[in-house]
Amino acid sequence: MEHLIIIGAAAAGTKAAAKARRENLNLKITLFTEEENISYSACGIPFYIGGEFDDYKKLIEYTPFEFEKEINAKVFILHKVLEIFPKKNSIKVKNLVTEDIFEEKYTKLLIATGAKPVKPPFDGIETKNIFTVRRVNDAIAIKKSTKKAKKAVIIGGGYIGIELFEAFLKLGLETKLIEKQNQIMAVLDFEMADNLKKMIEKESPNSIILSDSVKKFIPNSKGELEKIELESKRLIEADLAIIALGVRPNVKLAQNAGIKIGETGAIEVNKHMRTNINNIYAAGDCCEKNNMISQKPSWIPLGSTANKEARVAGLNLAGKNAEFEGVLGSAVTRFFDINISLTGLSEKAAIQQGYDVSAVTIDSKDKAGYMKDSAMISIKIIADKKTGKLLGAQGIGYGDVDKRINIIAAALCAKMTTKDYINIDITYAPPFSRAIDITTTAAYKLDKIN
Amino acid sequence: MEHLIIIGAAAAGTKAAAKARRENLNLKITLFTEEENISYSACGIPFYIGGEFDDYKKLIEYTPFEFEKEINAKVFILHKVLEIFPKKNSIKVKNLVTEDIFEEKYTKLLIATGAKPVKPPFDGIETKNIFTVRRVNDAIAIKKSTKKAKKAVIIGGGYIGIELFEAFLKLGLETKLIEKQNQIMAVLDFEMADNLKKMIEKESPNSIILSDSVKKFIPNSKGELEKIELESKRLIEADLAIIALGVRPNVKLAQNAGIKIGETGAIEVNKHMRTNINNIYAAGDCCEKNNMISQKPSWIPLGSTANKEARVAGLNLAGKNAEFEGVLGSAVTRFFDINISLTGLSEKAAIQQGYDVSAVTIDSKDKAGYMKDSAMISIKIIADKKTGKLLGAQGIGYGDVDKRINIIAAALCAKMTTKDYINIDITYAPPFSRAIDITTTAAYKLDKIN
Repeated sequence: MEHLIIIGAAAAGTKAAAKARRENLNLKITLFTEEENISYSACGIPFYIGGEFDDYKKLIEYTPFEFEKEINAKVFILHKVLEIFPKKNSIKVKNLVTEDIFEEKYTKLLIATGAKPVKPPFDGIETKNIFTVRRVNDAIAIKKSTKKAKKAVIIGGGYIGIELFEAFLKLGLETKLIEKQNQIMAVLDFEMADNLKKMIEKESPNSIILSDSVKKFIPNSKGELEKIELESKRLIEADLAIIALGVRPNVKLAQNAGIKIGETGAIEVNKHMRTNINNIYAAGDCCEKNNMISQKPSWIPLGSTANKEARVAGLNLAGKNAEFEGVLGSAVTRFFDINISLTGLSEKAAIQQGYDVSAVTIDSKDKAGYMKDSAMISIKIIADKKTGKLLGAQGIGYGDVDKRINIIAAALCAKMTTKDYINIDITYAPPFSRAIDITTTAAYKLDKIN
Repeated sequence: MEHLIIIGAAAAGTKAAAKARRENLNLKITLFTEEENISYSACGIPFYIGGEFDDYKKLIEYTPFEFEKEINAKVFILHKVLEIFPKKNSIKVKNLVTEDIFEEKYTKLLIATGAKPVKPPFDGIETKNIFTVRRVNDAIAIKKSTKKAKKAVIIGGGYIGIELFEAFLKLGLETKLIEKQNQIMAVLDFEMADNLKKMIEKESPNSIILSDSVKKFIPNSKGELEKIELESKRLIEADLAIIALGVRPNVKLAQNAGIKIGETGAIEVNKHMRTNINNIYAAGDCCEKNNMISQKPSWIPLGSTANKEARVAGLNLAGKNAEFEGVLGSAVTRFFDINISLTGLSEKAAIQQGYDVSAVTIDSKDKAGYMKDSAMISIKIIADKKTGKLLGAQGIGYGDVDKRINIIAAALCAKMTTKDYINIDITYAPPFSRAIDITTTAAYKLDKIN
C-alpha cells in the first residue's frame, strides 16, 4: 500500500490529508507535527484574543483524535521531523516527549511546514511578556497575558498587527503600534495607507508610531517587560509586546534534503505542487506561489491560498491531476468598522515590475446616499496604461470595500481590461450600492486615461 | 447648432443629457417629461416609504432648475410628447398646464420613456387607496396613505413587492403579500424562492399567499378600500393596496413613429443604443437589452442598466463611439436582514434556453463560524454540463450573499467555466469569509459534476 507522509498538520497538511483520503481509500496517511494542535485557524487568533470567542478550541477544527477517526489517518503530535532522506524515501522523526528517534518510510511525501514569525535579535528579546503570533499556544499565552497587562505595544503594522491592535483596544489596553516604514500596511500604496492611518487615529489618537523601531526591551526586576526603548531614543511603557514583523517560510528541512528553494526563499513547486523531487510535494506557507498577474514566483502566505494549494496537492497525491494557477495576493482585514481589502498589484509594485501605470482613486458613499448606513469608501484601481489591462485594486473605508475588491479579483483572474470591466453587470439596490458601482466609475475614468 | 431632444427625464434621460453635455459643449439639449420631477431614484421609493428617510426630495438628484444650470440644458416638465415625426425630425408636444400644443425640431432624438406599472382591469380598481409604484408622486401618495392605514396588501412578490413588504412592516402595518405564481421572486428557482418564503414567514408568519390573485377590490361607503376578494373567494381586509405586478416598456410613441419594437416588446437598439432610425436613440427601461449569456434580446428593466445605457447613448449622441455589451440581469434586494441577490440565468431559465444544466447549492456560514455575526447563506450556482461554462447564480440568506453573486457576475462576464472560477483568488479573513469561499466550494462541486 502506498504511504503518504505529511510533515506539518496545520491548515495545509490536514486539508491535503483530507482531500487525498476522499479521493483514495487505499492510501496509508501519516501526519507528523511538532505542535500539540492540528488543523487550526491561525487567522482566527486575533479574534480569540480580542474576545470574539472565549474558548481557544474554536480555533481548532479537529482534535488529533477526531481527525484520525474522520480521515482515517495517523497523526503524531509532538513529533519533530529532523531529516528527509529522498533517496531512501524516508524521514527521521523525534518524539518530543520520549525523545525517541525513529525512521519512517514513505512512498509520497508532502511538506507542509508552514512559516515562522520573524523575531529579530532585539536587545532584551528574552524579557517576559513578549510574544510572536502564529500557533494556538501563542494565542493562549497572549490571551493570558492580556488579563494582567495595561499597556501593550505591537511591533509591525501588517495584517496581524492591525488585527491585534483592534483586539487589545477591545480589551481596554492602552496600545501603541510601531512600524519601521513610513506607512502601515506595506501592501497598500502610501496614500491609501496614510488615509487608513488617519482613520485609525480618529478612533485611537496618537497610537501609531511610524519610521521607528525597537532598540531595546527593558524588563523590571522580575524580568517582565516594563519599557521599550525605540531607535529614536523614545521610551514607551509596556507590559505586553507583540512582534508582528511578518513570517518566513520554514524551508530548512526541505533545503537540507536537496529540495529546490526558489528565488523568494520558499520551496519551489510546479502547478501540481510538486517539488523538484518526483514524489515530494509541498503546500501552504512553506512554498512559492505563481503570481497570476506577473506570472513570476512570489511568496504571499495566506490561509486561503494554503487551503487551495493543499487541495491540489491532496488530489495529485491521491493520483488525480489537479493544478494550482496561482495567487493575486487578495486579502482583507479590518480595524473595528474600517475595512481594508486589496488584490493584485499596488501602484508601487506595478511600477517596480516595469509597468507604465495608470491609477484612479474614487471616494464615494458605498450605497445610495439616503440610506442611513451608507458610508464613505475609497477604492483605487491600477491598470496598465498601454493595454488597459487591470493590475490591482485597494479599498479602505467604513463601508463595503471587500465586495468591490473581489469583483476586481475575478476581473484580474480573467485578465480583463478596464473596457471589459465596464461590462460587468454589478447588482444595484439602494441598501447595497449606487446605481453605477464605484469600481465601474473608476474603470470609466481609467478608460479615459488609457 | 445640433439639437438633441430627449423624451423622458428620469434616470436614463437625465444621465444621457449630462454625459452628452460633458462630451460636447456645442449641443443644444432639451428634455421633455410629462412628470413634475426629473432625475429621481425610483429604486429608492420603498425605502422612503419605509421611513429610511423622511424627505422625498432625497429621491431626486436635481430639480429641473438645478439640472438646467448644472448641465446647460432646457427642461420642460409637465410636457407630454404626443408624436414623433422622423421624416420631419420633429416632435409634437403638449404643455399639460396650458394645453398648448407645439412642434419642436431635433437633429438627434433620444427616447427614454421608461416603463409603466402593469395595472390589470381588476374589478373595483378605481377604489381609493390602491396604488402602483413608479414615480415620485406615487411615493408621496403611498406614504400619505400609510399614515392612516392599518392593513396593507401587496399584490405581486417581485423586487418592489418584497421591498414594500419590509417598508409596511416597519411602519407597523399588518401586511399580506399575494402572488399568483406558486413562488415569490419569479427570477429565482423554485426551491430558493421557497426557502426565502420560509425565512420571510419566520419574521412575519402567515403573511404570504401564493397561487392566488385579486378578483375584486371592495370599497366602503366612502369609496375607500375595505376588502379584497381573491380568486379563491378568500376575503382579506385592507385599507391600502399596492399593485406590484411588474412593468411594461413605454413604447407606444416610438411604435407609432415606425421605430422597430423587438420581440420582447421593448424598443430594439443596437450596441450604440441606436434604433432602426439613424438619428433616433433609446435608453433605459423602454428598450431591449442584449443578454450577455444567451446573446439574445431580453427585457430586464433595472436602474443600474438604465444608467449604463444612458452613458453609452449620451456618448454616442455627443459624437463619440461607445458600446453597451448587455446585461446579466444582476440584481439584489433585501427583506429586513435577509439578502437576496442573483445574476445570469436561473436553472429553470437555462433549461428553457436549451442548456444541459448542472447546478449546485451550498448552505454555509458566510464567515468563520466562530465570528458572532456569521450567518447562514445559501448560494446556488448554475453551469452548462457540457462545457462547464457558468450560467448564473442565486443567493439568499442573513449573511453577505451580494459579494458572492457579484464575483460570479464578473465571472459570467468573462465567460468563465467552473474550472476558471476556482482560480479566482478571493479575499479571506475570519470576519469576512471562510478560508475557501462558498462560491469556490460550489465551483469545486460543479467541476466534479461537469
